[in-house]
Amino acid sequence: MADATIIDGKAFAATLRERVAGEVAALKAEHGLTPGLAVVLVGEDPASQVYVRNKGEQTEAAGMYSETHRLPADTAEADLFALVDRLNADPNIHGILVQFPVPAHLSQDRIVARISPDKDVDGLTVLNAGRLASGLPALTACTPVGCMMLIRDALGGELRGKRAVVIGRSNLMGKPMAQLLLAADCTVTIAHSRTVDLPAVCREADILVAAVGRAEMVKGDWIKPGAVVIDVGITRLPSLDPEKAAQGKTRIVGDVDFKQALAAAGAVTPVPGGVGPMTIACLLQNTLTAAKRIHGLEG
Amino acid sequence: MADATIIDGKAFAATLRERVAGEVAALKAEHGLTPGLAVVLVGEDPASQVYVRNKGEQTEAAGMYSETHRLPADTAEADLFALVDRLNADPNIHGILVQFPVPAHLSQDRIVARISPDKDVDGLTVLNAGRLASGLPALTACTPVGCMMLIRDALGGELRGKRAVVIGRSNLMGKPMAQLLLAADCTVTIAHSRTVDLPAVCREADILVAAVGRAEMVKGDWIKPGAVVIDVGITRLPSLDPEKAAQGKTRIVGDVDFKQALAAAGAVTPVPGGVGPMTIACLLQNTLTAAKRIHGLEG
Ligand SMILES: NC(=O)c1ccc[n+]([C@@H]2O[C@H](COP(=O)([O-])OP(=O)(O)OC[C@H]3O[C@@H](n4cnc5c(N)ncnc54)[C@H](OP(=O)(O)O)[C@@H]3O)[C@@H](O)[C@H]2O)c1
Ligand SMILES: NC(=O)c1ccc[n+]([C@@H]2O[C@H](COP(=O)([O-])OP(=O)(O)OC[C@H]3O[C@@H](n4cnc5c(N)ncnc54)[C@H](OP(=O)(O)O)[C@@H]3O)[C@@H](O)[C@H]2O)c1
Repeated sequence: MADATIIDGKAFAATLRERVAGEVAALKAEHGLTPGLAVVLVGEDPASQVYVRNKGEQTEAAGMYSETHRLPADTAEADLFALVDRLNADPNIHGILVQFPVPAHLSQDRIVARISPDKDVDGLTVLNAGRLASGLPALTACTPVGCMMLIRDALGGELRGKRAVVIGRSNLMGKPMAQLLLAADCTVTIAHSRTVDLPAVCREADILVAAVGRAEMVKGDWIKPGAVVIDVGITRLPSLDPEKAAQGKTRIVGDVDFKQALAAAGAVTPVPGGVGPMTIACLLQNTLTAAKRIHGLEG
Repeated sequence: MADATIIDGKAFAATLRERVAGEVAALKAEHGLTPGLAVVLVGEDPASQVYVRNKGEQTEAAGMYSETHRLPADTAEADLFALVDRLNADPNIHGILVQFPVPAHLSQDRIVARISPDKDVDGLTVLNAGRLASGLPALTACTPVGCMMLIRDALGGELRGKRAVVIGRSNLMGKPMAQLLLAADCTVTIAHSRTVDLPAVCREADILVAAVGRAEMVKGDWIKPGAVVIDVGITRLPSLDPEKAAQGKTRIVGDVDFKQALAAAGAVTPVPGGVGPMTIACLLQNTLTAAKRIHGLEG
């Protein structure tokens, strides 16, 4: 069989960012409205620092207003809440994102609950989960939204009646992914760590989304020939080069054995360069959507 | 193969009502708290009248406080909302149920949105859908809760890793059913009108829940031998006796061809007498749960 199409998330994300930038420009011109995103970082986690910087840069590149709040690692909950409350009330801010993980003395759940659901561009609040589950307009977590775009593109929009299997059932990733696939009229199966004979379940899938965090778990013979395979997992392993590994150099792999998937699937996302780049692009889109909804410019 | 066990929902519901009554008595004795349920009926739909009367009687039989509000069919939304607001604030009321359908000039969605999520014993509010989807303590629609009890009982509690297929994806029934099965560690598939080759999908199921509303759609050869089959559907057909049918007499059938299921399944609910009787019993349990939570007596 011919090799699978490699889904180019990087290129897709660039196109999406351009589209968002175009809409932002139109929104400014027609309504004098500039979407604004506030990112809050507590502590100095190096990976989080990189993410937050990227988010800020891409927000500005899309023509949006960007604000980054860096708080010390020992910030008291009350002070963080005061900031969130201020951002909730700030008319220049339409999206609020608190970068997780936060230091251990803070509760992720309590922080999320503090964010106005209408500015919850990470789609983490209980109300947005309920809106999504109920088929109402919701702000939905960026990564599943990005995965949906890649899936639609790979299938030319033909999702109806396809069998989709999602491995993973986290509130952030697996569950909203399943809801989005269901809303697109797929027959959806949700698998997880308690699933019996996961390979057989995966082989039923026309669309297979792996969101687990186990390096190269999904093998070639788990994949139905021709399936669209979306690899959300990110695991950091030592570099394959022993010298570099000795220096602490790492590489990133997904949940899917990419080489094997290439031979079996119809289309597959690489890691890195697949789902990853979509996440920030979808954050920009969610911020745009939030701004429009807050101003009554979209259903 | 031996015939399937016929799941006796009527007997199970009676036991459940007794258990609830026992807990209500304990709550009164230990905390001086009487759970209260308010049922609101707009208009004079004869089937709804019967349901509402049954709910009131069973609520009182369980030792709870019961209130029934019968409003004329032309009740204005503002007047209905005023009543709901009053019930939301009433310390004697812990559960509020508006009987649907309501007359066409009223919006079910707007009414549901008016009910306090903490008193939403029908589990219909967006916030309760979000709590359920997020794995938080929720009030969940009575029928899926009742189905879960029957499933647990039929399987002796062994749900983990079982394959469950839910046919139907309504907010009231299919979606919460899928969430409950997922929370019980089943591998869950949601099927619907766009599903391709539904019989094959159903044959994967160790637990098959049909919530469609199509008379006897699920045939014997859709059922994996030994599966637990839960028939939620209710369709009214003309009586089999032509004379009675001519007099307008009807009979009720489910989504499952019961006779065929008897030969294939391990256990199956009849219609009537299966899922149906569980619904009011679960409403009593939800009212008890709501009362406890409102008073901080349960997680
Ligand atoms: N590309 C991106 O931008 C992006 C964004 C978000 C996440 N991710 C990555 O995606 C992965 C998943 O993220 P998450 O937040 O959803 O993780 P998570 O909260 O840890 O959830 C992992 C899920 O995988 C399931 N699982 C664990 N071991 C399994 C096994 N052996 N077989 C089948 N299922 C198994 C778990 O099942 P149980 O529920 O039974 O425990 C759980 O539902 C991680 O690698 C994360 O880094 C990437
Ligand atoms: N026993 C009780 O106490 C109780 C309580 C509640 C409901 N019920 C009964 O349960 C049934 C379902 O109720 P509901 O409120 O969920 O109904 P609903 O809102 O009409 O939903 C029906 C579901 O069935 C799906 N469906 C329709 N035709 C189908 C087909 N040919 N193949 C596969 N799926 C099909 C629909 O798919 P789409 O989404 O693609 O349209 C929809 O998701 C009804 O008969 C109702 O009377 C009984």
